[in-house]
Amino acid sequence: MTSAPNRATLWGRILVDELAASGLEAVCLAPGSRSTPLTIAFAEHPEIEVFSHLDERSAAFFALGRARRTGEPTALVCTSGTAAANFHPAVIEADQARVPMLVLTADRPPELRDSGANQTVDQLDLYGDAVRWHAELPVPEASERTVRSLRTTAARALLETTVSEPGPVHLNCPFRKPLEPIETDGLESVPAEFSETLAGGGRDGAFVETREPETGSVDATDVDSIRAVLESAARPLIVAGPADPVTLSPSQLNSADIVAVADAVGAPVLADPLSNLRFGSHVDADRSTSDTQTIYGGYDGYIDTLPEPDAVLRFGASPTSKRLRHFLRDADPRQFLIDPVGAWREATFTATDLVAAEPGAVFETLADELADTDSDSGWRTRFAEAEHTHWTHCDDARTDEVLESTPFEGAILASVFEAAPDPATIFVSNSMPIRDGDRFGRPRQADLTVLANRGASGIDGITSSALGAGSATDDPLVLVTGDLAFYHDSNGLLALERCGVDATIVLLDNDGGGIFHKLPVEAFDPPFTSQFKTPHGLEFDALAELYELEFQHVGPTEFEGAYRQSLASEGTQVLSVKFDSAASHRRREELDEAVRTAVAADDN
Amino acid sequence: MTSAPNRATLWGRILVDELAASGLEAVCLAPGSRSTPLTIAFAEHPEIEVFSHLDERSAAFFALGRARRTGEPTALVCTSGTAAANFHPAVIEADQARVPMLVLTADRPPELRDSGANQTVDQLDLYGDAVRWHAELPVPEASERTVRSLRTTAARALLETTVSEPGPVHLNCPFRKPLEPIETDGLESVPAEFSETLAGGGRDGAFVETREPETGSVDATDVDSIRAVLESAARPLIVAGPADPVTLSPSQLNSADIVAVADAVGAPVLADPLSNLRFGSHVDADRSTSDTQTIYGGYDGYIDTLPEPDAVLRFGASPTSKRLRHFLRDADPRQFLIDPVGAWREATFTATDLVAAEPGAVFETLADELADTDSDSGWRTRFAEAEHTHWTHCDDARTDEVLESTPFEGAILASVFEAAPDPATIFVSNSMPIRDGDRFGRPRQADLTVLANRGASGIDGITSSALGAGSATDDPLVLVTGDLAFYHDSNGLLALERCGVDATIVLLDNDGGGIFHKLPVEAFDPPFTSQFKTPHGLEFDALAELYELEFQHVGPTEFEGAYRQSLASEGTQVLSVKFDSAASHRRREELDEAVRTAVAADDN
Repeated sequence: MTSAPNRATLWGRILVDELAASGLEAVCLAPGSRSTPLTIAFAEHPEIEVFSHLDERSAAFFALGRARRTGEPTALVCTSGTAAANFHPAVIEADQARVPMLVLTADRPPELRDSGANQTVDQLDLYGDAVRWHAELPVPEASERTVRSLRTTAARALLETTVSEPGPVHLNCPFRKPLEPIETDGLESVPAEFSETLAGGGRDGAFVETREPETGSVDATDVDSIRAVLESAARPLIVAGPADPVTLSPSQLNSADIVAVADAVGAPVLADPLSNLRFGSHVDADRSTSDTQTIYGGYDGYIDTLPEPDAVLRFGASPTSKRLRHFLRDADPRQFLIDPVGAWREATFTATDLVAAEPGAVFETLADELADTDSDSGWRTRFAEAEHTHWTHCDDARTDEVLESTPFEGAILASVFEAAPDPATIFVSNSMPIRDGDRFGRPRQADLTVLANRGASGIDGITSSALGAGSATDDPLVLVTGDLAFYHDSNGLLALERCGVDATIVLLDNDGGGIFHKLPVEAFDPPFTSQFKTPHGLEFDALAELYELEFQHVGPTEFEGAYRQSLASEGTQVLSVKFDSAASHRRREELDEAVRTAVAADDN
Repeated sequence: MTSAPNRATLWGRILVDELAASGLEAVCLAPGSRSTPLTIAFAEHPEIEVFSHLDERSAAFFALGRARRTGEPTALVCTSGTAAANFHPAVIEADQARVPMLVLTADRPPELRDSGANQTVDQLDLYGDAVRWHAELPVPEASERTVRSLRTTAARALLETTVSEPGPVHLNCPFRKPLEPIETDGLESVPAEFSETLAGGGRDGAFVETREPETGSVDATDVDSIRAVLESAARPLIVAGPADPVTLSPSQLNSADIVAVADAVGAPVLADPLSNLRFGSHVDADRSTSDTQTIYGGYDGYIDTLPEPDAVLRFGASPTSKRLRHFLRDADPRQFLIDPVGAWREATFTATDLVAAEPGAVFETLADELADTDSDSGWRTRFAEAEHTHWTHCDDARTDEVLESTPFEGAILASVFEAAPDPATIFVSNSMPIRDGDRFGRPRQADLTVLANRGASGIDGITSSALGAGSATDDPLVLVTGDLAFYHDSNGLLALERCGVDATIVLLDNDGGGIFHKLPVEAFDPPFTSQFKTPHGLEFDALAELYELEFQHVGPTEFEGAYRQSLASEGTQVLSVKFDSAASHRRREELDEAVRTAVAADDN
């Protein structure tokens, strides 16, 4: 490390150097003055990819989306003041969804706080309990001890984002002027000999190894107990909820093990679209209509018409499907919840056993040890039939002729998954898109990485999260969003050009909050329309000019063709499909009724 | 009050009823499900004006801007989850700038927290120390005691926004289903007789009277001490910083008293553009070039070339002018800081006396008691000459011919104030616009209410804050903003139509962060351009179509005509004036040098 002209510069360089040595690969920077030492150090570092953003809220969601895709922390930098509070929504999502994130907020030095100085707010505990750890760095000082403390704090902060329960970590970084790399001979200077000492004081590699699957650490008693219950169950079920990006990534949880366990005991695997299990090479297309079918995706359409399970093995976050959650609650079977950090993420409070273990390790052990006990009782056959009925109805509702007269948003979601290239990253907005994606996204033998912000389930930051995810790989990127979410994070579109991401954006535009039609408040108008559905009349075509993207209006029957074409094209296309949310809601209800009636009839 | 069909509905109605009785007049609502009881109660209440917003960040800044204009709290309502975190930036600004704000966040009931339930995050202490008070309401219950507690809490919360140090207050409001006003016969029902009891339990008027000027409460010793210093000072100065909207509103601080005190002791009043004193009927146009001139506005251009004051009386927040702050620091005179809540808002740490008193009361007492001691020492003459020199240079730089060849952004700000109708509300963005407004906004005998977000000085939420301010009166509304701030809160433009506000938006578009040219980092490129100036190339014309406004590109010399025309027109016009920020910066420096040289020469 070359001699630093002043302490702030020295500090920024050491911090970034240490983060890089600890494995940090990407940072999102928002412009500002107080953060100059960090910004310059990041911009100069050869090993860290820099993404520049102008709206801190979008920056934070971009970082979130990238980390959600990679399982690796993204760092965030902003200046002092309200800028840091703009990170807060994404920090909360990162907390709830266990997404690693390192937030670096520049700050005025302590002597300026609460003094009326400009852009000086109380940042020390800005994110409350939403961060795994937060610390304030000392004001830069050129002493060996403080520099060692800085290096240790940086390494620790990055590690805290993934070890134990992954999530956000906040370092508040006070700096005194000068903030730029200019020579100073005052208090803020660095003795020449100090920089040399420091260069020698650097280190190779990380302090701590990153997380590896800990197969050996699974408690044998826990696994024995699960195995015994599964082996004796007549109607076992495996429920895969949304996957945490670090602890339930495909590298941590082997889908072959899940399939092996499920097949051994004859358990259907109800795979949330966000579980990493609904799509992938383990989904055997050939047996998708037979009773040996393992992976199920249509259950949100029919689950409550089926017999109750007598044993359930769950992992991941709470399933997207409310009907499934209520089905499990009402059935109230022996229900194991396997969570890598031992958290009780189960809001129906009907789990009977919490197993604090890595699900990957549990399934690996089970796969090795389980005897094949599938007695062909017809349990999986029942699911396979229901699944078949569900998809048949869904396909019938999607023919051009039917769709023309009775369009519904679920048909678009069905096409999104069915026609997506292999591989692809598909980011689905909260509110109706993820619900429709859950019900109409058919399991497929394709490497589709499906992501959503299901931690806190906000409709904020959706576009930025998707583009952040897209920035992490060369996979084609699809974003499915509603009009309110698209409006909410319209600023996020700036990342298309600034961060070099291309996307196919599927905009389901029903002019307001279609989801409210599902709620009893629909019957109270006013204020239903003005305060809940909130139609806005925005014609988003105008954003095409602002953000240099292609904007196309497509009808429901034209969608699939336009979608395939967009995915085969360069650049970003928004495919806007307009719906009447009330009509679409009725159609969804109608289909639902038809599927449930048919599935119930299958049983007779 | 009619019988409530369930507890959540009852709760919402009582809460809103009590807030209305305590004087709440306006609320900003963002759509959501959990907040249904609040939304419906607000929407139904005849005395509270409702503003509907789709982006919670913009909603909160709109509420902030409105309260900044009125001095009265605006309420804010959102659903649970990240929505509440989107309020955070505006809550921080409200804290720092003493703007009253009542934040009502709907929440899941306690039993669902930390359970993995959807949209459930820890909201209890979401805004940390930024709120004056925060409380969690009990889950709705139909008992007299809890209802009385609810009424008391509501009244207290509203009062806490303005009593003592005005600012934000947060009530977290958990609700169980049903959230809609539907009959229920379960646990959540309300006994018929209870609603009747409750109707009788309502009350008239507020628990506590609102703030009145407390002239009588000024400590006589404090005033005597100030008077003695002022009377004996040869070079006294009065410095009016940005006004707090509640405690330093024109109704609390009589400008005639300030003028009387200033004239009695021969003190120039350096009036920040945000002080409520740079513009108004007390600014005597006739004597603006004589030594009896009282109100000064150009000091940021020349103050450091003048002799040092020997006594300074300050009130309001820290002045916008950095040069003035440094001048006061370096002069280090006897310096009284009068603050209504006794806070040390003085980041140069050179105040000698903190007076915890209402500035209005102090000046009223001083005006009554001060003898006329102005000995005509030439002290004010020196200021009057400097001021004259400053404005002459400014005028010369603004002629069409000069402006054509050497445009600069300050010329636009000069016109904004000079050509504004009387009355008008002018909201000025942070970063360069407020600095240029400070230097080039000439005192005027016109009722201009000039506002900015100088609490935390962020560039977030500027458009929404302006539109919120505009929603409070029929005054013509002007917003002056830079391109980064305009981009940052582009969502805020939706309020133009949804909230029925018209504005003249002056967009100073220099394609990035022009302010960074003022900083030493300008010399380090890269990363100066990519990470600090951050040009984005956005052509904002496209927003005209999206938000149904008129967008005009005007050159610097065409600006004033277009500005007057816009102010005489219906609807919203964006007047975009493009500048090269580097050239504009050089021109500003050049003018600055010329003014300071001329003012220094005046002295010889």
